[in-house]
Amino acid sequence: MKVFQLDGGWSADHLMIAERPTPVPGPGQALLRMRAAALNYRDMVVLQRGYGAQTGTLPLIPLSDGVGEVVALGPGVSRVKVGERVCPTFFQRWAGGPPNADRLASSLGGPLDGVMAEYMAVDAEGLAHVPDHLSDAEAATLPCAALTAWSALVTEGRVQPGERVLIQGTGGVSLFALQFAKLIGAFAIVTSSSGEKLERARALGADATLSYRETPEWGRSVREIAGGDGVDHIVEVGGQATLPQSLRAIRPGGTISMIGVLSGSSMDARLGLVVTRQVRLQGITVGSRDGFEAMARAIGQHQLRPVVDRVFAFEELPQAFAHLTSGAHFGKVCIGF
Amino acid sequence: MKVFQLDGGWSADHLMIAERPTPVPGPGQALLRMRAAALNYRDMVVLQRGYGAQTGTLPLIPLSDGVGEVVALGPGVSRVKVGERVCPTFFQRWAGGPPNADRLASSLGGPLDGVMAEYMAVDAEGLAHVPDHLSDAEAATLPCAALTAWSALVTEGRVQPGERVLIQGTGGVSLFALQFAKLIGAFAIVTSSSGEKLERARALGADATLSYRETPEWGRSVREIAGGDGVDHIVEVGGQATLPQSLRAIRPGGTISMIGVLSGSSMDARLGLVVTRQVRLQGITVGSRDGFEAMARAIGQHQLRPVVDRVFAFEELPQAFAHLTSGAHFGKVCIGF
Amino acid sequence: MKVFQLDGGWSADHLMIAERPTPVPGPGQALLRMRAAALNYRDMVVLQRGYGAQTGTLPLIPLSDGVGEVVALGPGVSRVKVGERVCPTFFQRWAGGPPNADRLASSLGGPLDGVMAEYMAVDAEGLAHVPDHLSDAEAATLPCAALTAWSALVTEGRVQPGERVLIQGTGGVSLFALQFAKLIGAFAIVTSSSGEKLERARALGADATLSYRETPEWGRSVREIAGGDGVDHIVEVGGQATLPQSLRAIRPGGTISMIGVLSGSSMDARLGLVVTRQVRLQGITVGSRDGFEAMARAIGQHQLRPVVDRVFAFEELPQAFAHLTSGAHFGKVCIGF
Amino acid sequence: MKVFQLDGGWSADHLMIAERPTPVPGPGQALLRMRAAALNYRDMVVLQRGYGAQTGTLPLIPLSDGVGEVVALGPGVSRVKVGERVCPTFFQRWAGGPPNADRLASSLGGPLDGVMAEYMAVDAEGLAHVPDHLSDAEAATLPCAALTAWSALVTEGRVQPGERVLIQGTGGVSLFALQFAKLIGAFAIVTSSSGEKLERARALGADATLSYRETPEWGRSVREIAGGDGVDHIVEVGGQATLPQSLRAIRPGGTISMIGVLSGSSMDARLGLVVTRQVRLQGITVGSRDGFEAMARAIGQHQLRPVVDRVFAFEELPQAFAHLTSGAHFGKVCIGF
Repeated sequence: MKVFQLDGGWSADHLMIAERPTPVPGPGQALLRMRAAALNYRDMVVLQRGYGAQTGTLPLIPLSDGVGEVVALGPGVSRVKVGERVCPTFFQRWAGGPPNADRLASSLGGPLDGVMAEYMAVDAEGLAHVPDHLSDAEAATLPCAALTAWSALVTEGRVQPGERVLIQGTGGVSLFALQFAKLIGAFAIVTSSSGEKLERARALGADATLSYRETPEWGRSVREIAGGDGVDHIVEVGGQATLPQSLRAIRPGGTISMIGVLSGSSMDARLGLVVTRQVRLQGITVGSRDGFEAMARAIGQHQLRPVVDRVFAFEELPQAFAHLTSGAHFGKVCIGF
Repeated sequence: MKVFQLDGGWSADHLMIAERPTPVPGPGQALLRMRAAALNYRDMVVLQRGYGAQTGTLPLIPLSDGVGEVVALGPGVSRVKVGERVCPTFFQRWAGGPPNADRLASSLGGPLDGVMAEYMAVDAEGLAHVPDHLSDAEAATLPCAALTAWSALVTEGRVQPGERVLIQGTGGVSLFALQFAKLIGAFAIVTSSSGEKLERARALGADATLSYRETPEWGRSVREIAGGDGVDHIVEVGGQATLPQSLRAIRPGGTISMIGVLSGSSMDARLGLVVTRQVRLQGITVGSRDGFEAMARAIGQHQLRPVVDRVFAFEELPQAFAHLTSGAHFGKVCIGF
Repeated sequence: MKVFQLDGGWSADHLMIAERPTPVPGPGQALLRMRAAALNYRDMVVLQRGYGAQTGTLPLIPLSDGVGEVVALGPGVSRVKVGERVCPTFFQRWAGGPPNADRLASSLGGPLDGVMAEYMAVDAEGLAHVPDHLSDAEAATLPCAALTAWSALVTEGRVQPGERVLIQGTGGVSLFALQFAKLIGAFAIVTSSSGEKLERARALGADATLSYRETPEWGRSVREIAGGDGVDHIVEVGGQATLPQSLRAIRPGGTISMIGVLSGSSMDARLGLVVTRQVRLQGITVGSRDGFEAMARAIGQHQLRPVVDRVFAFEELPQAFAHLTSGAHFGKVCIGF
Repeated sequence: MKVFQLDGGWSADHLMIAERPTPVPGPGQALLRMRAAALNYRDMVVLQRGYGAQTGTLPLIPLSDGVGEVVALGPGVSRVKVGERVCPTFFQRWAGGPPNADRLASSLGGPLDGVMAEYMAVDAEGLAHVPDHLSDAEAATLPCAALTAWSALVTEGRVQPGERVLIQGTGGVSLFALQFAKLIGAFAIVTSSSGEKLERARALGADATLSYRETPEWGRSVREIAGGDGVDHIVEVGGQATLPQSLRAIRPGGTISMIGVLSGSSMDARLGLVVTRQVRLQGITVGSRDGFEAMARAIGQHQLRPVVDRVFAFEELPQAFAHLTSGAHFGKVCIGF
């Protein structure tokens, strides 16, 4: 079968198409014919040996997010059936409960081989069904980006109707966070540097928007929009450059979901604001299969559609990475098989 | 009546004894004859107009922590009776539930007048009973230091038996954290620069100790002591200098209670370790009256005795502050009236 | 001022209009000119000395739910201002945190005097603001019926988007539960004996409905509608007659909010289904002021309108009770002042 | 190999020793040489086709609780090593997270074959390590009885130091509940009909005891012992006969862990006490592997020793059942292999 793999060195230059034998599903495994994949910022970091890839070895099949059809079963599988459409979960050994080192070491696309292969043999415990109404490209976006947003707002954040949620930017996780915030009945405030992207965020349901280009010190403005003591929850994807403003925007007792480090990986913020206002900074690391299944049920009930920016062909993976890097996208960058 | 007050400027030099009229309890209030007080690091910051004092005005009666005897009641009071021994709660308007700006603005010893007065008229809703077995000085230590440790480990942290708790140093909050950790059945690891203090911590029940003078990079050592993936919970009082080590010592999914900023008020730590290991940094701001009452019940059941280093006379408040500043103490620095 | 009061005996026959002196707000109190009230099933039980009325004395002003305008303030009030529209909270001393005996003993309309008075002097701590878009009658429905539904689904139940909620009947609490379930993004199933009421429930957003007259053994049918293992959450208002069916409809690990005893106050159900499927039966007793404020914010954001069946005049309180008893209503029975 | 199995009919009369081929560990499995087992009340119910056995088929190897040594590994196992001592978890497919139908259908000793076999091949995901200081018989008691008590007090109940816990009787779960309650720092009250058993409970740490033979209406007495509003938590193992008293003993907002139905499987109790005092009845169904591992760590740290009443030989299983039925035991009835 055909795969994309990183071989011979850790950089995008070493991405290449290769041939591997089609896997045979062992006991407890299902064989998937892959139909689509989706890119995350993380996948670019992995190419430079960041994140989970630190313990990985080459060659490595990249990308964590994809969807496939079950085409064969090994012995003893009852969770899925031939013909069903499923996603491999981001963490293959995190079915439920809190994270631990073993569960967090089982991520696809580094250290484990990812989804850029025509076929995958996956433990049935590492699979989850996807809602029928989604296209393959849409379904492929769920394992990492969507589940991260779900874990932030629902599983860990427990956001309630009427609460005010600040969402930074319009990247993959942020757009899902916006859609889920509206599902929950929260009040969603979105920031971006682009007026056009803010307009699209409003079309997706944002209750208020704010350009951080026009208002670099946006912490106070967000607080005014939120009314009262500040926002209840922040989806923090910027990291170094945004956290100081987030600490001004959050209400006492509020939660900041720590998701991304797009603007730098150092934390440089006034501790006093965390301590004296009982703020919670909650790291979010994708989530478990239990979380995926709860999310998929909500997406199915509400016929929610992930925002797909563009679907590239299998061979165009390098171009897809370049498009993601450009920052011109609004929504997920996908691969159709 | 005699009071200590800060008047004419924000610094320790402006602390002085003064006369004020003895207050009369209004509707819903109790009159307390104060019997003891206890110092916190916070009280020194307030003298420089830090923390809650920013919105305060002078003259200000300092110190948040004290205990008194009810000697008279205003109309409509049923929560307390004449002759009972009670502590004014640190936050006068935080009876229960989550914190909010109003609740957090009601702290004693800045912005509200504190406990260094012979008499106080206090809303009965802002009082809590203290266990009988405690001396006055011991009882005076509960409102801020003890409740902060209780909120960190019990109310917010929900530490379970068998969990491993790292406690930084042997200051007021830290010693209470050690005592509470043992009450819960947790495994307690204590750090200090002083071998003598570590020995005293072991006598109080510490299961393991570690000198950060001898082992400046103590994160890895703590992880080895804890076994497995790292400690489950950290009582973080150092801030800037200690957080990077704490992020190495904590297990994936663990909680760091953010309590103090003794070593600097900037946060400078690798964000990636928070995000990719789903770590929680939880700011702790003392706690509510509900928390105080739960803690007092546990202290009473177990006849737990707070560690009192030394009791100064009312007039010796400046000397008591100097003693606290010296760092030579082990346990709380108190004032007997 | 004019009041309705129960005097001379515990039964609806002893309800009468009387004159009392207009109260003067004391320290910490606000004076309200009442504008509307709303009836609950509980109010009828209180007339027979049920519920909290057991410790009450006569004469007693009935009804817990009402709304008024602040017309004067006693000394030291900052939470509310003259001219604002507020509800007295159901429990006057439950601002936040978990319930306890003292908090639960402070309910209006028994044992404390209720809202059927032209003026009320209320501790400011026992008041909460109401959303602007509501009529007086709509606002009057919030303190007991709406907050009970909110506590069941949000505060205690923590229902998530995509979860399946079974709501019994179309009484006051049930219709609010339906509206809140939709706000949260849940899937709502409503039961009733009346086809017409089921139709109105669908118009309010019910995703599925079921006649328990046509399907007396509805537990299994609900399970089929829910798909999978059963519903995640049940708003249980029937008690004795409905609990056995609820235990068939609930999924393992699900929660049944125990709210009402309309069909009998004995519990007669198979314990094994609770134990072996880890089901939670959670008693719901209205809720705290914190809960009210969170609910009011959500209602305001979504411009949600409580369902008002009919508004009677102040003097028509007996007719309003008769209408409530008839069971012909759909939505709240209110009183306009 | 030698096994005990139920064959030819559902009753204790059909228990017999038989020969089966020694299993070979498949991919992901470990082979255990079993060393000890322990009986639970449930095992007697299973013999009559109760509980999980309803969907089981004969022949069935009984008993859920046992401990063995790993003697061989199938391919791909890293969680356990040859030579280690492990327990098969009660639910083989419940690693973590909330219960669901699939997880609850995977219990040993019915519907799945249990531990009364010289060898078992078990999925490594269904194994957990046991503390070193325990004898084989002691270790065998952990999977069902100990974990049920842990789930009740710790995982679900989140009992805090100073809380008052009522424990009914001195059966297997109850004695573990007593030991864990003391570990947590709670105040433990134990009931029994036997003065001698109450004395042994005090020796194990019970803070107060009460004979329900001498005080059949013990609800009020427990409330007096507890002080204040009643106990915070009840370990309810009696069911029908005890729940009415438990509802008198529990405080408003308290939790009753529903564990057993020894006195009858109907629930017959006043609903009003649940609703108006916001009481929680929480069904407890053993627990997950995550819970087991947390419990084992606490047991190891505190060198806690399960109470073993008597150890029978493998062939004496019928006598062991008879001993359990007699009610004369104090502590677990075990089987040594």
